Amino acid sequence: MTCKKCELEPVYKLSSGVKLCKSCFLKYFEKKVRKTIRIYNLIKKGDKVIVAVSGGKDSSTILEILSKLHLKNKIFELVAVSIDEGIGPYRKKTIKKAEKICKKLGIKHYIFSFKKEFGYSLKEIMKKLQIKPCTACGVLRRYLLNKKARELNANKLVIGHNLDDEAQTILMNQFKRKMNLSARLGPLNGLKDDARFIRRIKPLYLMLEKETATYAFLKGLMGSSSICPYSHEAFRDDVKKMLNDFEHKYHGTKNSIITSFLEVLPLLKNKYQTDEPINRCLDCGEATTSDFCQACKILKSLKD
Amino acid sequence: MTCKKCELEPVYKLSSGVKLCKSCFLKYFEKKVRKTIRIYNLIKKGDKVIVAVSGGKDSSTILEILSKLHLKNKIFELVAVSIDEGIGPYRKKTIKKAEKICKKLGIKHYIFSFKKEFGYSLKEIMKKLQIKPCTACGVLRRYLLNKKARELNANKLVIGHNLDDEAQTILMNQFKRKMNLSARLGPLNGLKDDARFIRRIKPLYLMLEKETATYAFLKGLMGSSSICPYSHEAFRDDVKKMLNDFEHKYHGTKNSIITSFLEVLPLLKNKYQTDEPINRCLDCGEATTSDFCQACKILKSLKD
Repeated sequence: MTCKKCELEPVYKLSSGVKLCKSCFLKYFEKKVRKTIRIYNLIKKGDKVIVAVSGGKDSSTILEILSKLHLKNKIFELVAVSIDEGIGPYRKKTIKKAEKICKKLGIKHYIFSFKKEFGYSLKEIMKKLQIKPCTACGVLRRYLLNKKARELNANKLVIGHNLDDEAQTILMNQFKRKMNLSARLGPLNGLKDDARFIRRIKPLYLMLEKETATYAFLKGLMGSSSICPYSHEAFRDDVKKMLNDFEHKYHGTKNSIITSFLEVLPLLKNKYQTDEPINRCLDCGEATTSDFCQACKILKSLKD
Repeated sequence: MTCKKCELEPVYKLSSGVKLCKSCFLKYFEKKVRKTIRIYNLIKKGDKVIVAVSGGKDSSTILEILSKLHLKNKIFELVAVSIDEGIGPYRKKTIKKAEKICKKLGIKHYIFSFKKEFGYSLKEIMKKLQIKPCTACGVLRRYLLNKKARELNANKLVIGHNLDDEAQTILMNQFKRKMNLSARLGPLNGLKDDARFIRRIKPLYLMLEKETATYAFLKGLMGSSSICPYSHEAFRDDVKKMLNDFEHKYHGTKNSIITSFLEVLPLLKNKYQTDEPINRCLDCGEATTSDFCQACKILKSLKD
């Protein structure tokens, strides 16, 4: 019952059954993230990389690892950005955490708020438009991250999505007949030649949520766990629970879903990205399937 | 709370919420099966169609509907075949049921047994080779059905798989990283130009298991329910239960899985059927990915 590599006391058991001590687990985790970046060509020499930092375990973990990589070879620029949607004490607390981590790592940190950028906080938007918080928040956060990344001359935007997030989204799209949305997934999103859309990269793509949480915990990145007060997506929660149950009974299920998906992803991209017409939003010029993008639709209805 | 179409007492509620009485449900079911046959071009003028009849609800249902269709337009030949694997009283009972249905419908019925064809019953094969019953049974039953269909000059072999069976298999392959096996699924299997492999068709492809069971029950095709004594596939059972839970909470989940799958199936067929080399079994000449097909491997080891 010792670490497979160095015979110290193990802290984590991989899906394969291999047990690792703290030091070997951290090495394993960082090595696998670096490998993900390498095999999917997520970061290249000369890239300006922006990490979207929420203060949560995933974005803090990837910021820590990218900072190490940056210090080692300096071939890319690295900055961090946080979005303050205006969700009261919850977001204030997590942004403080993000600030603290960026300061510790010596990474330049930008904070942008819904209130300042759009004139309304998420709370005010919800009240005015009577829409679900997660829908508006997701659309506007993605829009603002992309806009700010572009204005800061970044060409890569790092998202903290881990393997569990991706496996859930794959099944959710399949269960709701939205395969066209799955075509937009994968470790590297966005079209190469679309200057208005900053490519989104997911270096934690091959890391399980449990592994990421363990890394964050061992590195002291967890802080006091705080959950968004609006966070309640019943369908995702059900898919998540189901996948955890299957993974528990049939080790490697989540990995298999991702590997199966990666086998067909190029086919999906080819089919759906060719099928779907790419229009330009008449307001902001970003890619959309209709006349206006989702974000501009929300922003317009705020002004009405 | 009456039938949507004729205001009689309803017996079934569709996923869409629409309620139907007995007569309208039977019409809905038969119409949808005929539509499946039409849109996927499962049966053409001049086809010789063999139905694999186990005596269970699915194969009895499809035999009943195809018989009606055959009597109506006589554009295709229709016969039935049952395989007696030698699973003791269970199979004797179901084959009697199959015989009775074929007699009632006036359909020629052939019965072939493992014992007579291979020299050993399934029970004897299990004892001799110490292998799992479902593996050997599935491989040898498919082999024998194909061989006999070919010898009887049939060009279509009807399989009673319903929408639930297919949705389970799709997820099972995905959860075990076997996307190449999913490329062989769909309502119409087999290559057009492979004379040794009789094309398998699934007219119940778009019918839920619950719908099929209701049809069989209303038509008096259920008989006393008997379950194969070896039937216990833990992984399939878990996937089945999970899908039933999701369907219960999120109506239309199973349908969405099938529709999503049908969108990508042509891509899968193109990818995996081009990637995989098609060899010919050195013994029987049927398609295989190695030197000998699975059935011939089992039959050879019986002789050793």
